[in-house]
Amino acid sequence: MVGLSRNTDRRVRVALVGTGFVGRVHLEAILRLGFVDVCALGTATADLESAKRLASDFGIPLVTDDYHALIEDEAVHAVDVCTPNALHVPIAREALQRGKHVLCEKPLATSSEDARELVALALEKQVRNCTCHNLRYYPMVQQMRRMREAGELGEILAVQGTYSQDWLLYETDWNWRIVSNHNGPSRTMADIGSHWCDMAEHVTGQRITALCADLQTFHKTRRRPKREIETFGGKTLNPSDYEEVRNDTEDCGAVVFRMGDRTRGSFTASQVSAGRKNRLAIEIFGTKQSVAWDGERPDELWIGNRNAHNQVIVKDPSLLKAEARSYADLPGGHSEGYDDTFKQVFRRFYRSIQDPAIAPEYPLFADGLRQLQLVEAELASSEKHGWEEVLC
Amino acid sequence: MVGLSRNTDRRVRVALVGTGFVGRVHLEAILRLGFVDVCALGTATADLESAKRLASDFGIPLVTDDYHALIEDEAVHAVDVCTPNALHVPIAREALQRGKHVLCEKPLATSSEDARELVALALEKQVRNCTCHNLRYYPMVQQMRRMREAGELGEILAVQGTYSQDWLLYETDWNWRIVSNHNGPSRTMADIGSHWCDMAEHVTGQRITALCADLQTFHKTRRRPKREIETFGGKTLNPSDYEEVRNDTEDCGAVVFRMGDRTRGSFTASQVSAGRKNRLAIEIFGTKQSVAWDGERPDELWIGNRNAHNQVIVKDPSLLKAEARSYADLPGGHSEGYDDTFKQVFRRFYRSIQDPAIAPEYPLFADGLRQLQLVEAELASSEKHGWEEVLC
Amino acid sequence: MVGLSRNTDRRVRVALVGTGFVGRVHLEAILRLGFVDVCALGTATADLESAKRLASDFGIPLVTDDYHALIEDEAVHAVDVCTPNALHVPIAREALQRGKHVLCEKPLATSSEDARELVALALEKQVRNCTCHNLRYYPMVQQMRRMREAGELGEILAVQGTYSQDWLLYETDWNWRIVSNHNGPSRTMADIGSHWCDMAEHVTGQRITALCADLQTFHKTRRRPKREIETFGGKTLNPSDYEEVRNDTEDCGAVVFRMGDRTRGSFTASQVSAGRKNRLAIEIFGTKQSVAWDGERPDELWIGNRNAHNQVIVKDPSLLKAEARSYADLPGGHSEGYDDTFKQVFRRFYRSIQDPAIAPEYPLFADGLRQLQLVEAELASSEKHGWEEVLC
Amino acid sequence: MVGLSRNTDRRVRVALVGTGFVGRVHLEAILRLGFVDVCALGTATADLESAKRLASDFGIPLVTDDYHALIEDEAVHAVDVCTPNALHVPIAREALQRGKHVLCEKPLATSSEDARELVALALEKQVRNCTCHNLRYYPMVQQMRRMREAGELGEILAVQGTYSQDWLLYETDWNWRIVSNHNGPSRTMADIGSHWCDMAEHVTGQRITALCADLQTFHKTRRRPKREIETFGGKTLNPSDYEEVRNDTEDCGAVVFRMGDRTRGSFTASQVSAGRKNRLAIEIFGTKQSVAWDGERPDELWIGNRNAHNQVIVKDPSLLKAEARSYADLPGGHSEGYDDTFKQVFRRFYRSIQDPAIAPEYPLFADGLRQLQLVEAELASSEKHGWEEVLC
Repeated sequence: MVGLSRNTDRRVRVALVGTGFVGRVHLEAILRLGFVDVCALGTATADLESAKRLASDFGIPLVTDDYHALIEDEAVHAVDVCTPNALHVPIAREALQRGKHVLCEKPLATSSEDARELVALALEKQVRNCTCHNLRYYPMVQQMRRMREAGELGEILAVQGTYSQDWLLYETDWNWRIVSNHNGPSRTMADIGSHWCDMAEHVTGQRITALCADLQTFHKTRRRPKREIETFGGKTLNPSDYEEVRNDTEDCGAVVFRMGDRTRGSFTASQVSAGRKNRLAIEIFGTKQSVAWDGERPDELWIGNRNAHNQVIVKDPSLLKAEARSYADLPGGHSEGYDDTFKQVFRRFYRSIQDPAIAPEYPLFADGLRQLQLVEAELASSEKHGWEEVLC
Repeated sequence: MVGLSRNTDRRVRVALVGTGFVGRVHLEAILRLGFVDVCALGTATADLESAKRLASDFGIPLVTDDYHALIEDEAVHAVDVCTPNALHVPIAREALQRGKHVLCEKPLATSSEDARELVALALEKQVRNCTCHNLRYYPMVQQMRRMREAGELGEILAVQGTYSQDWLLYETDWNWRIVSNHNGPSRTMADIGSHWCDMAEHVTGQRITALCADLQTFHKTRRRPKREIETFGGKTLNPSDYEEVRNDTEDCGAVVFRMGDRTRGSFTASQVSAGRKNRLAIEIFGTKQSVAWDGERPDELWIGNRNAHNQVIVKDPSLLKAEARSYADLPGGHSEGYDDTFKQVFRRFYRSIQDPAIAPEYPLFADGLRQLQLVEAELASSEKHGWEEVLC
Repeated sequence: MVGLSRNTDRRVRVALVGTGFVGRVHLEAILRLGFVDVCALGTATADLESAKRLASDFGIPLVTDDYHALIEDEAVHAVDVCTPNALHVPIAREALQRGKHVLCEKPLATSSEDARELVALALEKQVRNCTCHNLRYYPMVQQMRRMREAGELGEILAVQGTYSQDWLLYETDWNWRIVSNHNGPSRTMADIGSHWCDMAEHVTGQRITALCADLQTFHKTRRRPKREIETFGGKTLNPSDYEEVRNDTEDCGAVVFRMGDRTRGSFTASQVSAGRKNRLAIEIFGTKQSVAWDGERPDELWIGNRNAHNQVIVKDPSLLKAEARSYADLPGGHSEGYDDTFKQVFRRFYRSIQDPAIAPEYPLFADGLRQLQLVEAELASSEKHGWEEVLC
Repeated sequence: MVGLSRNTDRRVRVALVGTGFVGRVHLEAILRLGFVDVCALGTATADLESAKRLASDFGIPLVTDDYHALIEDEAVHAVDVCTPNALHVPIAREALQRGKHVLCEKPLATSSEDARELVALALEKQVRNCTCHNLRYYPMVQQMRRMREAGELGEILAVQGTYSQDWLLYETDWNWRIVSNHNGPSRTMADIGSHWCDMAEHVTGQRITALCADLQTFHKTRRRPKREIETFGGKTLNPSDYEEVRNDTEDCGAVVFRMGDRTRGSFTASQVSAGRKNRLAIEIFGTKQSVAWDGERPDELWIGNRNAHNQVIVKDPSLLKAEARSYADLPGGHSEGYDDTFKQVFRRFYRSIQDPAIAPEYPLFADGLRQLQLVEAELASSEKHGWEEVLC
């Protein structure tokens, strides 16, 4: 039997702030990497007792409701921010200022101005930074991207799709995201529309240059339950004891846009689409081939041809392009899911902390800023009822 | 053995003008009704010899390349117009003036002004009139409509979808529709976008009130083959002996729109989407339920629920709403296709000629006019790069 | 205007016997051919009045409940038999003896002995004969066949699938097929299993050589409604006034089989599978490629590859093999359905009556005999609870 | 900041033996639980250096190629066996004898006799034991099971399906499973057929009582590459330097079976089905409802109805039965994959080690024994070319 000294110098130590739905997803994804230790768990909004239970379950040695303490801890290499949106900037800013590497959930900030500050600060401090646009890292999304990079799609003519959910359909559906001072001025476009746009720009390699958006808030007020509930958790709630609150963030939006030199596109985002649990669908039409992907069947990819049979790939690393293959950990037909996209992002992010020579192959703060520019353009376009140019 | 005298007084006699792809589809659909005789075949563009062969194959006693003669024939009750678009109005106008019932392929005209004239003339002459928006009459489309009428969807919040084809993807793809003086000023929006909008308005029972469209012509010129080819027939052509022609009609378009009081929507139409052979997809999201339908799987209907399982219907008359059932001639799981939609429209149209008491349950000239209003609004919106109100 | 004399010598005159569900399907399919006249309508089981109404609707000049009269009519070229199974043989035999061409619904007979007699008689009389295994003639089924003929599948290793329906799930579901003296000794295997086996042998070009079947009758008795009902029509019946009748035909069966030299296979057939309206699914695995087809989505074909992407064809004649293309009348993405398969069979059958030089490209009486041999082997195997060799 | 003492008494320490494909899957799944430490890594077949690298990457302190040492280690609570099949029994036996809890990959043994010994030994030692039939624990499979338990399916009439793969299609495809002295006498049926049967019995709650199997070895010899390769890894190998080896295990099999009192069924298993990457499909037909599931789209479940619309669930915990909900960690529409099934099994297995009061909700050694009985019956049936009774 060979004893291996745990090479603690090589191991990355991360403090995770935020213990809600996505915080737990991050926690699991980090643990399965094997080379990263979650050394502390912070909560900005939940009670300390429940955070302690979580930490105890997962063997995390430190817990706090004071995130400053985590950031000041010399032993911490990196901070992972999973709090409600409005806290992203103060936590990330402080962590950057202390020279920590930072991974932050999206949206990076509630304004592009704040996001721009974080981008600049990360550059100044020369630390690793990541905005968690994890959906890019489904193996099939990478396959689309690598096909485009290899020229297999030809020139991109049109991009279209939707991100549709139903968890905020009813007036009685509630979540912290409803309230703009926790969430920022845009809800549906920032929360899920930004995933769609990030994927569209990532896969096509082009930027949206102008857009015309029409946002709609169907429920001008919503009924807030008196006790706190989890993201996605409201569906099991009993319809009792609500208070009426003004809903100042959009329930859905439709956008037509222009991209690159002459690509055209459109998409919708909605949190009020009955029956659509979490459907990000994207179609990209090129002069040579097309691709279409649906996040509810993530291991499949449709490839459209004009003069040959269409193809439908079931994920099989042996059939993926070489550059996409490393995003698939399992053999053909063994499904990989939502949790696995976090693993792919985190593996690359934390490896890049271990090894300064690695070029970042994950979404940066700059990508988070980019999405905020688009969200702001959508808000402006909808407000003025007309087209809006987008900074590129 | 009982001899039945053929009740010729009851039988409807129709003259069909136009022997291209859709003309043959009409011919078959009429024949299978059993109670309608195609008494004459006219051609406005093809050579008389090929029309004679077609007539001979199908037992049609009269053939002509002079459509005026057909219209003047006292024995003809109705005229079915399947010519290229620019001929719809002169033929329909003349037939109406002679008091014939008229069924016309869509688009009814190449301008709303012309269409309005036909609507008025049909009203004045008190004859049956139909614009062939056949796609409404897939059984599952009727099921969507009847669910909405019954209130099962609740208030409609959003409508979205696409009509995508790939048969005009390449610069060398040619069809008479490319040329605006045969086709009218809009190609993709008028040819297939109008099917989508007709379905959206028919199923929701609401009118589009404003829209913002972005049309694009990727091929500024196209290469025309020197000999004539069928609609959809170009794919098998050899790439030889073309001449370059200016393409002045759009290849694709994206539209956001408002509908009714507060419904929002978007759709795209494209004839350059590799791999999409003929995909009309529509999703309608209501406050109670949603429905989604894809014309490439016409016998299926998706019904989305928030607090119950989603449903997927495979067409089965015993499970359809009573009002939709009559559009399905076959039992559960026996597929009905594109040809069958024409049968449904034609059965109702020609029965209404037999029986003046029947209320028209088919698309009228007024519906054809409506789609031209929308197409003109799309052209105007795209031209001015902004929102356009639509007459309702 | 050119008057064409109706070339009555060229036109085929057919008498159709049987006015139930499939009789009407035949009627429509014949009418749309254009070159065949249905000159008489016979009914063997229904009342004459309802047959008269049908004939009047469809412009058929003669009606009778005495099928002998039809067969004796000199003007009749061909007889189309759509009666309950037990009447197939007497009608077809008599028609053959009078030198008529005969098209007969499947199963051709209720015993292989009877079927063998019809095959011999048709040969002796040198007339055209067809057993209506129409499902072969979906364009995508022909594509599978032509791929196999071209060697694209390689050697066939395995064939599997099912034909599942639910219309006889309940004890109260009734149809004339329940009663073996109208139907013959096998119901599910003869009615739908035979379609599956016909397709499997047709597409692979191989014969089943041995099989082990396990048949099951879940409802030992069924409740018969007192009035007559249509095939597939029972679902809308009220549960009243039934009488209990012994059900002596199987509700479902499972079969493993051997085919050709070393191909293996299995299939199930069932009329008690809740939710499966009419699902014929078949998968064929070869050493080079595989194909899979589902009759509820007839215009799609899956092609499986080991070292390349799988393909999914949406029917597009320009992409089909040349030999399969003539089975698709509509362009890409325009759905063709169940009715259209009859048109394909009938067009070829009646053309072969017009033109004695045409080799039959439709299922013969010999194919009907073949399926009865398989059904009898299935009954024998299940009875003896072991493998049974099949005559080839 | 609150420091939590790592409650090491509560944490479970497991030694994992086997570092191949599934060994790594186990490793990740254990790590993400949070409350289990992988304290040692053993390899029975691979070289120690590669095992050391793996251990170092994942922070595992001990590595050995002597599994006896692991078992003797007092600090080890449980042993997880991921070696080639023939080593399962000696390792599991020794671990049981030392009083360790044991989780073993399937098949539990290469004979039912050996498996029976392990079952008895585990009972005698009163330790937790698990055979890793993980596929049961997809949320949708649990939903099927819980629907059946609640009586929603009614009596089960028929069960059918397939487990199809293509990774051993070619003669040049190689894996240790080809060789019966590493693998045991059955390959395809034991490796994947057993997953299908386990799921069928688990979901229906019934036992297969008799079966007729037809197994086939298409490649009587196969070409072995001279260097060792991973399970599923052969596809990327160059076709060079092979040696010819006799293939004495089946490539595919087809089975009809009887289950419970009168349920009928059939399934196929194949590793030579081009294009099927890893497709476990199962359909269960009851007197009230049916269910169908396809492991390549694991988050979807089809529910078939006779007199109501069919349903298609996209996984959403709020819509699952209460008992199935705990198997879904993510909200509606967030895909869960193959790795996640291991997490579900392991969480329950290791919790049951922490807490002796917990009833095992995972597959036991007895379930592994059961599958070996079925595999042996399949081999016997195929050998004798007839039906075989199965011990229940």
